[in-house]
Amino acid sequence: MRIISTLTEWQQLRQSLDLKLTVGFVPTMGNLHAGHASLLELARAQNDIVVLSIFVNPTQFNDPQDYQSYPRTHEADLALAEKLNVDYVFMPEKSSLYPDNYTYQVSETEISQYQEGAYRPGHFMGMLTVVLKLLLLVQAQRAYFGEKDHQQLQLIRGLVKAFFLNVDIVACPIVRESTGLALSSRNSLLTAVERTQAEHFAQIFQQITLPCADIIQQLTRAGIQVDYVEDRDNRRCAAVKVGRIRLIDNHSLDQV
Amino acid sequence: MRIISTLTEWQQLRQSLDLKLTVGFVPTMGNLHAGHASLLELARAQNDIVVLSIFVNPTQFNDPQDYQSYPRTHEADLALAEKLNVDYVFMPEKSSLYPDNYTYQVSETEISQYQEGAYRPGHFMGMLTVVLKLLLLVQAQRAYFGEKDHQQLQLIRGLVKAFFLNVDIVACPIVRESTGLALSSRNSLLTAVERTQAEHFAQIFQQITLPCADIIQQLTRAGIQVDYVEDRDNRRCAAVKVGRIRLIDNHSLDQV
Repeated sequence: MRIISTLTEWQQLRQSLDLKLTVGFVPTMGNLHAGHASLLELARAQNDIVVLSIFVNPTQFNDPQDYQSYPRTHEADLALAEKLNVDYVFMPEKSSLYPDNYTYQVSETEISQYQEGAYRPGHFMGMLTVVLKLLLLVQAQRAYFGEKDHQQLQLIRGLVKAFFLNVDIVACPIVRESTGLALSSRNSLLTAVERTQAEHFAQIFQQITLPCADIIQQLTRAGIQVDYVEDRDNRRCAAVKVGRIRLIDNHSLDQV
Repeated sequence: MRIISTLTEWQQLRQSLDLKLTVGFVPTMGNLHAGHASLLELARAQNDIVVLSIFVNPTQFNDPQDYQSYPRTHEADLALAEKLNVDYVFMPEKSSLYPDNYTYQVSETEISQYQEGAYRPGHFMGMLTVVLKLLLLVQAQRAYFGEKDHQQLQLIRGLVKAFFLNVDIVACPIVRESTGLALSSRNSLLTAVERTQAEHFAQIFQQITLPCADIIQQLTRAGIQVDYVEDRDNRRCAAVKVGRIRLIDNHSLDQV
């Protein structure tokens, strides 16, 4: 496994790779958990070369406090990547990904307007901008994203279509703890009491045969602050706050 | 010379081209004049394959009337392209370049704010979005732009840097009539009286040793409506209106 920390080194390496080999790309913000592992395992199974990027992208954090406290666990991340037979770990510096100082931005006007878009101003613009940069740098045949960030996944599929990118977007299902709680890097920031509340959120939210209003009522009664619980395009999405930590989750309504 | 009018046909053709051959790309909105010819000639001299695109991009017209009246002269354009040994003319439909219905947009926050950006809201966003789409579709080694649209050229250079595109942006000098008037597709919309005024604009504006304020005064006295005459980064740029037609021009101040 080779760790690449400069953009130039990555670009030289990418140019040297045999064009006949397929590249699978897993972009992450690090603090890897079993959800990321499922992406890396699928990428490993489907491609000749697996590229993992770790970059805590400042432009997609609407809340500076969230950016500061976002868990950074590089040693454990690299150990997991090694174990999963990742070929290249790309860990660029902020300044190298933003030679323009974020004066060039990619935005979207529909999907990005509701749910996370409404609660996190600028989040999707930062995400789309960095994902486009990374996709253009890595030039993978396949890129892997988790279904937990459902709106993000939809937006990235749209980005690929709008700009004719030659990459297949592969989605992987949400990985959950035995308690039902969806894995998230932010879970590691929960106190013991908050974790119990987070599990409670997952358990209430998984009752997908109940109307959203009932779910919201149950969550509120459990002392959980609800940003939204909403059905749209056959998927139910939710965001709540447990203490200072914001959690999201979703379930397909296809089977209901 | 082959004319390609569908996106799929272009994508198939691009994939079939030998990767060892260099591609030079000249994106235009048609109504080709000697300025475009200079771009095509340089592209022909520097590359194995020359691709010309003709697409009147609706998203970069802030004024619907300007979009409607923009001169469309496909037969003459194709004759010139043939004469200049263009290999491929790509003439996509609007719907195929905007499968997202322009919900995905590329914007810039500094250069795009003044001069043309201030007078043509949305213009640079539409331009940057379509140029990124075209650059990603054509995958050229070199792309050619005229210095007449100086801000556009600066913005495209920044776009290439911000998104790590593997294309050299080649700029060609402004081509002028013997009167000094910079060639522009919009010149063909001028009446005889307006043309005289347009030439007068060019002659007044070329006095680059005079301060901007004096130029503005002379233009105003000549009955020409001035949007701006401004020095910035060693270049003097101007935009005026002659009748309903808006004209731009610029001169380098390097020699002054």
